[in-house]
Amino acid sequence: MTSRPVLANTREELAGLLADARRSGARVAFVPTMGALHDGHASLMRTAREATSGPVVVSIFVNPMQFAPTEDLDRYPRTLDADLEVCAAEGVDVVFAPSVEEMYPGGFSHDSVHDGVTVAPGTLATILDGESRPGHFDGVLTVVAKLFGLVRPDVAVFGQKDYQQLALIRRMVRDLCMGIEVVGSETVREPDGLALSSRNRYLDAGQRQTAVALSRALRAAQERAPYGVPAARWAAMSILKQAATAGLELDYLALTSPDLGEAPETGEGRILVAARVGTTRLIDNMAITFDRITPDATAGTASAASTTSEGSG
Amino acid sequence: MTSRPVLANTREELAGLLADARRSGARVAFVPTMGALHDGHASLMRTAREATSGPVVVSIFVNPMQFAPTEDLDRYPRTLDADLEVCAAEGVDVVFAPSVEEMYPGGFSHDSVHDGVTVAPGTLATILDGESRPGHFDGVLTVVAKLFGLVRPDVAVFGQKDYQQLALIRRMVRDLCMGIEVVGSETVREPDGLALSSRNRYLDAGQRQTAVALSRALRAAQERAPYGVPAARWAAMSILKQAATAGLELDYLALTSPDLGEAPETGEGRILVAARVGTTRLIDNMAITFDRITPDATAGTASAASTTSEGSG
Repeated sequence: MTSRPVLANTREELAGLLADARRSGARVAFVPTMGALHDGHASLMRTAREATSGPVVVSIFVNPMQFAPTEDLDRYPRTLDADLEVCAAEGVDVVFAPSVEEMYPGGFSHDSVHDGVTVAPGTLATILDGESRPGHFDGVLTVVAKLFGLVRPDVAVFGQKDYQQLALIRRMVRDLCMGIEVVGSETVREPDGLALSSRNRYLDAGQRQTAVALSRALRAAQERAPYGVPAARWAAMSILKQAATAGLELDYLALTSPDLGEAPETGEGRILVAARVGTTRLIDNMAITFDRITPDATAGTASAASTTSEGSG
Repeated sequence: MTSRPVLANTREELAGLLADARRSGARVAFVPTMGALHDGHASLMRTAREATSGPVVVSIFVNPMQFAPTEDLDRYPRTLDADLEVCAAEGVDVVFAPSVEEMYPGGFSHDSVHDGVTVAPGTLATILDGESRPGHFDGVLTVVAKLFGLVRPDVAVFGQKDYQQLALIRRMVRDLCMGIEVVGSETVREPDGLALSSRNRYLDAGQRQTAVALSRALRAAQERAPYGVPAARWAAMSILKQAATAGLELDYLALTSPDLGEAPETGEGRILVAARVGTTRLIDNMAITFDRITPDATAGTASAASTTSEGSG
């Protein structure tokens, strides 16, 4: 299981490696990544490995189209040798690590990419991370469509940590009839709750302490969710406000339905957070189940408190 | 060869019909149409039939997304029974004729379609027909991407008559790495030169006479092309201006490179025309080879005439 995967750097090499599998009708499972692989990615690979007896393909490509010119494209970690070890340990068969030129023939530029054909992500890309990072999801969906075209997977595995991305990929597969099974895999966390992310390595020791406020805020909201949406929001906000004194800069805290619409008064929902710690932008999210339990005779007070917290988000 | 093709109205029926072919590794050839099939379509089907010993699939779908609300969606001809006869005669195996609801689950509306994920065609869709029909190529590429996802063809055949559409589909296949061979098939014409089109049946006898000016103008340009771009344009414009007195309303006459860029001074190019005859919009185009022969000592005069025609287009 720890034999090294075969590395393909070009589309032709990839096509050659997958041709036999295609002819045999084997199911192809695919995990697109930007490299800098950690235990969260390893978990995606295990999910992919369990989904097929055919080939598991991992792509490693830091996609310039999904980074704004002001973002961390240049300093985004590149750790190919270590990444190949992670893939080997998880029984991955093929690693596709193309150059920018290979994925964007003629080279990539933000100015010219929309001269060509791209994927338009629609309104779901205008909220949350899409509001903070205009064009980000155009870049994500366009490169994932390209990768899907090259790999032609039967099943593709994405992390729930990038929840809005996962929702948009599901939407793309549905709206463009791509016929690919999309699996959303549980977020892997550090023992203290911090969601694993390739960007965590940017954090110094103090920032690392501060960053745990994201998952703590989400957990606090989960605990208060039986008392309704405002109570859940208030619980999360009080932790995030505390962390603000240690340098956490909140981008958004959002309570939504599972498909990122308006939060239901009762039932299943999602809570999502994005914040900057130093210059590092972190995101996290969890499932949440809302209810409308009126705590006790002081319900009026609780409601007033909730309304205040609604306004402060 | 004239056994009737199998008709699929749903995605599930289509997937079922193609499953065996996929497993056997047979090449699937695909001809997307809007129905109202004529000899031009039959020619596309023959090209597809020659491209594979596996299944030939024809789709018949009048795609609302590529019609503006003011356009002829409602009166666009629907002739399914006759269409199936055409497909049968050309040895087509599967006809996919989905409902709007099947292709746009939840129904189609121009207001909501961009809420979801669509294909963004880029700058090539902003000129020529794209300038006259804003949003048209968003609709074309989005529905073709959907159909490609459902049919998963190895080769797809399109008519050169819709030359800009063909260029955009080639670009989509390249930019989104769809891995489909796109074949552009020669335009089929009436004996007098009029390009076959499902919209020709809108024309009354007088309009039919006027409409032949499009192909005559293109042929005249071809003949004058050895004398350069302005001379070719002048030849076409003089015929189109004559036809204007009979009610032809020119939309554009464009002389371009083969990929719809600027026309080269010498070498291969394309000439394209769009005009309205009555309420019917017609398009046509031809290959053209430019040169820079100076006719004789009266070159000065010819050049002046050419400059005039440039300004009048």
